[in-house]
Amino acid sequence: MSDLINARDAALRARAEKVVPSGMWGHLHAVKLPEAYPQFFARGEGGVVWDVDGNRYVDFMCSWGPNLLGHHHPEVEEAAERQRRLGDCLNGPGEVMVELAEMLVDTIAHADWALFQKNGTDATTTCVTVARAATAKRKVLVAKGAYHGAVPWCSPSLVGVTAEDRAHLIYYIFNDIESLENAVKEAGDDMAAIVVSAYRHDLGFDQELPTEDFAKAARRLADSKNAALILDEVRAGFRLYTAGSWEPLGVRPDLSAWSKAIANGYALSAVTGSDWLRKAASQVFVTGSFWAGAVAMAAALATLKVVRRDDVPAKVSYLGQMLRDGLETRSRQFGVSIRQSGPAQMPTVLFDDDADFAKGSAFCRAALAKGVYFHPKHNMFLCASHTEADIAEALVAAEHGFAAVSASGDSS
Amino acid sequence: MSDLINARDAALRARAEKVVPSGMWGHLHAVKLPEAYPQFFARGEGGVVWDVDGNRYVDFMCSWGPNLLGHHHPEVEEAAERQRRLGDCLNGPGEVMVELAEMLVDTIAHADWALFQKNGTDATTTCVTVARAATAKRKVLVAKGAYHGAVPWCSPSLVGVTAEDRAHLIYYIFNDIESLENAVKEAGDDMAAIVVSAYRHDLGFDQELPTEDFAKAARRLADSKNAALILDEVRAGFRLYTAGSWEPLGVRPDLSAWSKAIANGYALSAVTGSDWLRKAASQVFVTGSFWAGAVAMAAALATLKVVRRDDVPAKVSYLGQMLRDGLETRSRQFGVSIRQSGPAQMPTVLFDDDADFAKGSAFCRAALAKGVYFHPKHNMFLCASHTEADIAEALVAAEHGFAAVSASGDSS
Repeated sequence: MSDLINARDAALRARAEKVVPSGMWGHLHAVKLPEAYPQFFARGEGGVVWDVDGNRYVDFMCSWGPNLLGHHHPEVEEAAERQRRLGDCLNGPGEVMVELAEMLVDTIAHADWALFQKNGTDATTTCVTVARAATAKRKVLVAKGAYHGAVPWCSPSLVGVTAEDRAHLIYYIFNDIESLENAVKEAGDDMAAIVVSAYRHDLGFDQELPTEDFAKAARRLADSKNAALILDEVRAGFRLYTAGSWEPLGVRPDLSAWSKAIANGYALSAVTGSDWLRKAASQVFVTGSFWAGAVAMAAALATLKVVRRDDVPAKVSYLGQMLRDGLETRSRQFGVSIRQSGPAQMPTVLFDDDADFAKGSAFCRAALAKGVYFHPKHNMFLCASHTEADIAEALVAAEHGFAAVSASGDSS
Repeated sequence: MSDLINARDAALRARAEKVVPSGMWGHLHAVKLPEAYPQFFARGEGGVVWDVDGNRYVDFMCSWGPNLLGHHHPEVEEAAERQRRLGDCLNGPGEVMVELAEMLVDTIAHADWALFQKNGTDATTTCVTVARAATAKRKVLVAKGAYHGAVPWCSPSLVGVTAEDRAHLIYYIFNDIESLENAVKEAGDDMAAIVVSAYRHDLGFDQELPTEDFAKAARRLADSKNAALILDEVRAGFRLYTAGSWEPLGVRPDLSAWSKAIANGYALSAVTGSDWLRKAASQVFVTGSFWAGAVAMAAALATLKVVRRDDVPAKVSYLGQMLRDGLETRSRQFGVSIRQSGPAQMPTVLFDDDADFAKGSAFCRAALAKGVYFHPKHNMFLCASHTEADIAEALVAAEHGFAAVSASGDSS
């Protein structure tokens, strides 16, 4: 099927199989991708990556989100290197922590304060802990199918998880006000928080932006119980809207969880919060060995400066719309029915009549062989280093993809 | 009290107070340290750090563990920089992940495989999740007062934590075989794991190395229930004994959690496991946005090469013993009774009749003013870049510390 050379990848997989359970884990496990997708990567520049066999791809996963400005962005790297020459992990934070917290408070509309961690899961878990501390309540409302991390309270898998880990979760349906109202009723007098993703980006489904009515209902219902509205911005943050993804809806959360794009690939996450949660945030005990690391904070500060100065969400949206329009035109040319959903910066492309993602996989395999890295069922990510030439290259590869789907005889 | 200039630190604290709840959080919050200790640090070299006011300290906290080889260790930095020029956070791991996993399996006596994360808490949580997945049991035995991380299931604080988060924990006392036997009995047929720290390093108490009898009992009791013996090496790993801290006791765990020193300050943690847990480890869903980051792995690989080649634990132990012997002699000269405990590489120094740590604080403040950074109640850390001259400097500062304690009239 593939024109790709993958001998080195295959050899590394064989070695990995011996020393890593099933050779890899988590969301980056290539076993979840179509055949021929590489597991191991050698390098990245801008919006392009190379696998260990030297195959070059225009990359529409962008490290699954962290790569927002492009690999090796000069301003980010210079800031990180300047800090690195001084020190990274010391006995306390550097001056840069204050500058970064000030930057977040100045940038994020609802933010009165910030706390820093390493993983997105650290940020979502900290939000929930702070909400429980502030309210002395326990129930946390989450949307069915939403991803908020990979620890027992929120993991998409129940393997190794106990019933008690989920004891205080109550589920609602994203964008379904009635289901949220029912969940609030079920929580009764014990509601600590509503957790909601910036938009619905469940794996394998059409993405949904929040309706304004839903966002306002979430705000009103949280207020009605003096509970915290927690916005999970881990995946969407700094790609949708710089001041916060729900700012255009006129709805401000009490707590937001940030990670992925915040430091352009350096490991960092953050919680921003409103004043009424400041005391609780100072009372919970959350920490990690590397959470005050100054290099990632310097990278984040540089990243956010660029995001603000260049209106990166608008820039990435423009490129994403170009890709979306091109895919739409070409899918019609090939007589293939696709559904494109989600924000243009984080597009999801699904095929009609494709419950097993066979068409999506055929499309992706063919595009991969032409040097473009798409995903058959997860939302994708564009970055600010993608060029119009990259989009043009992606659309040529997509033509091969649509041709493969069309040739499979299943086109609808 | 202090000779230190701290205007910049004070100014940063005032700014931080506005944008970070209580100005800082977690274990690095200077409010938990004696007055005059700086909150903010500017740089580090080897075993020395400078605060933001330019005060220089021979550092015996070593970033609370991560700084094992010294800040800016040339081999670690060169390996990290080489990887950085290629790429860090990509769509999958680099070749270095395989090399690092192979290195861990080759280095750690019990290890058949490895998984990587970012925080120590990620590693301990993954161990528990894997043990539950493998055994289909729920109860986890932990020592009273032990620190295994800062999320609800194990946090030392109950603020924002629910009873259900702790529902399946059963407590025993470190080094107390009978208490462990009772905990095993209490777990009945529902025991997934015994979690135990490499040694007892509870805050504010004399440290205890595990007795051989206790370690063997833990092994035997875990085996009697087909449960996993989980060794928490996050704090002690690669300082006590390269092949695993319990290797000299002749006891091998089934799972170990590693972090802190593993990459000499780069954010990384790891789980190593035995073959019987390999399948379960491939079934649980654990992941994070930055867990495959190649730069931290390159740093870890370089760190472990140095640890093995130079027998770093022995080197650090030699320096720690020199400090310990010197403190013992000088405390007697000043008529001050101290208790030194724990491994020489990670010494704890406590004062007799000092329930409120007033003597410890007076000692530390006086030493700090002379350019040496000790901790009054937490275990400290030495690194391989400390020199005999650093130890000599520390002992001169300690004389000022003991003099301060002695002058306070409370010496016993």
